[in-house]
Amino acid sequence: MSNCVIFSLPGNEVMANSLINLMHGEPGEAVIRHFPDGETYVKVDSNVYEKEAFIVCSLHNPDEKILPLYFLAKTLKEFRAHPVTLITPYLAYMRQDKRFINGECISSDLFARLLSSFIDKLITIDPHLHRHTSLDEIYSIHTAVLHVSHLISKWINENVQQPVLIGPDSESEQWVSKVAADANAPYIILEKIRKGDRNVRVSVPHVEKYKEYIPVLVDDIISTAHTMLETIGHLKKAAMKPPVCIGIHAVFADKAYVKLLKAGAEKVVTCNTITHPSNAICVDEVLAGEVCKNSFVD
Amino acid sequence: MSNCVIFSLPGNEVMANSLINLMHGEPGEAVIRHFPDGETYVKVDSNVYEKEAFIVCSLHNPDEKILPLYFLAKTLKEFRAHPVTLITPYLAYMRQDKRFINGECISSDLFARLLSSFIDKLITIDPHLHRHTSLDEIYSIHTAVLHVSHLISKWINENVQQPVLIGPDSESEQWVSKVAADANAPYIILEKIRKGDRNVRVSVPHVEKYKEYIPVLVDDIISTAHTMLETIGHLKKAAMKPPVCIGIHAVFADKAYVKLLKAGAEKVVTCNTITHPSNAICVDEVLAGEVCKNSFVD
Repeated sequence: MSNCVIFSLPGNEVMANSLINLMHGEPGEAVIRHFPDGETYVKVDSNVYEKEAFIVCSLHNPDEKILPLYFLAKTLKEFRAHPVTLITPYLAYMRQDKRFINGECISSDLFARLLSSFIDKLITIDPHLHRHTSLDEIYSIHTAVLHVSHLISKWINENVQQPVLIGPDSESEQWVSKVAADANAPYIILEKIRKGDRNVRVSVPHVEKYKEYIPVLVDDIISTAHTMLETIGHLKKAAMKPPVCIGIHAVFADKAYVKLLKAGAEKVVTCNTITHPSNAICVDEVLAGEVCKNSFVD
Repeated sequence: MSNCVIFSLPGNEVMANSLINLMHGEPGEAVIRHFPDGETYVKVDSNVYEKEAFIVCSLHNPDEKILPLYFLAKTLKEFRAHPVTLITPYLAYMRQDKRFINGECISSDLFARLLSSFIDKLITIDPHLHRHTSLDEIYSIHTAVLHVSHLISKWINENVQQPVLIGPDSESEQWVSKVAADANAPYIILEKIRKGDRNVRVSVPHVEKYKEYIPVLVDDIISTAHTMLETIGHLKKAAMKPPVCIGIHAVFADKAYVKLLKAGAEKVVTCNTITHPSNAICVDEVLAGEVCKNSFVD
């Protein structure tokens, strides 16, 4: 792509460089740093006049990133870049999408409105859409949502000997069955057997058949990893092999990464939407492909 | 004031409670915390329907505060509070008020535009106005700027035996002379004597007359304290007594507080616009007085 300049916020340089190569774009030169008092300083050194500008910025720990992102985007616009597109492989504030309790702030809507006020377009990967069926319900700008479950299936197919996908509950069946089919692997959905008000036993159906298989757990975000940790416990009780845990977004709140390994995960693997030692599945080509599609350019 | 509810962002509870008492306002009940993944959660528990709402939030280290503030303000508006007034004793992003170098972001203007987009009114104390003569040049909302130099004069008058105010350069004379007059104290402006391109000597005029006085240094923001530290050096060379250093805003970047004490300051004193152990001058009554003035209420 000619006439496009690709900037990154601090911490996103590796992905930005990869996208610059894949998109044949121009590296965006900018200084983004803190003054001694904690305020952010931004200086744009590239000429962006009447060029398309991209900002690569994954939005985990979003609070500290929003002002640097706002300053950069607005300054690019002052210098007549158009459109200014945010490439955010991990999009934040997707979970508080209604008032679960009276008085709650619906941060997913408010965050979307704020981003929409200073960004022209947004590209992201598998955002945690739950009650909203599309980002268009909350974002007033053009958004492109990309999916990478096929990359996870490919990774399983190439890296796990005799895998069996494990779904923690019936809700997960749709997603787990698709990843399993693409990986040419079988899958099991755990069953809850209620034996009274407080006595729920979880069983692994057909467990005997899969004793020699490697269980594979897949989720979109690994945050506190609560469900994965529980599932590892159920597999252990059923005497299955140590599982491989795969997540798209490596949020890992509350030391979840270490907890998973300690709980007996054979391996924890993530996509590079958030930089983390567990990154093993690269989404850069999916992002670059979307950007280079003519449909996305005005 | 009836029909007004006063909220605070975490870290501003002491001042908020004091304002609630002084303004006879209703304490704003809200939960503001972080999810394990770092995102902010906000819940408003007070009834704010058709009431005036105030948010107390000093804006040092502003980057991490802007989203919590935005979420709270917007949620209060959703619940029909009006107007929503930000009481920010220290206002951030006042220094980058022009492009000193090509390509720079003018953060003072952009920050003002962002705050103006979700706050109805703003009250602050001695913002660092330099090239702008008024906040109205950058803020599109109603702003009230309060001054507290009289409180500093009063503190000097009551707490320093035989004070002499020290201005580090001729630019400071206007401000230093005013604080000195209100404190019933004399003042000296340091003189630069140029003896060649790189040889500038700083002298303390009439130094013999003030050998027994306590030098008092005053500034609006103590950030890196660069000028104060230099001035302490000049006073030491002139064999004057250890000075008292007073600032309105206790930003103290780069361990400036410790540096001042190590450099020989007798004492470092600040206003409580930013919570810090050096706080000794209370601005709460000035803030409450402004709010209660009818002129500020619609």
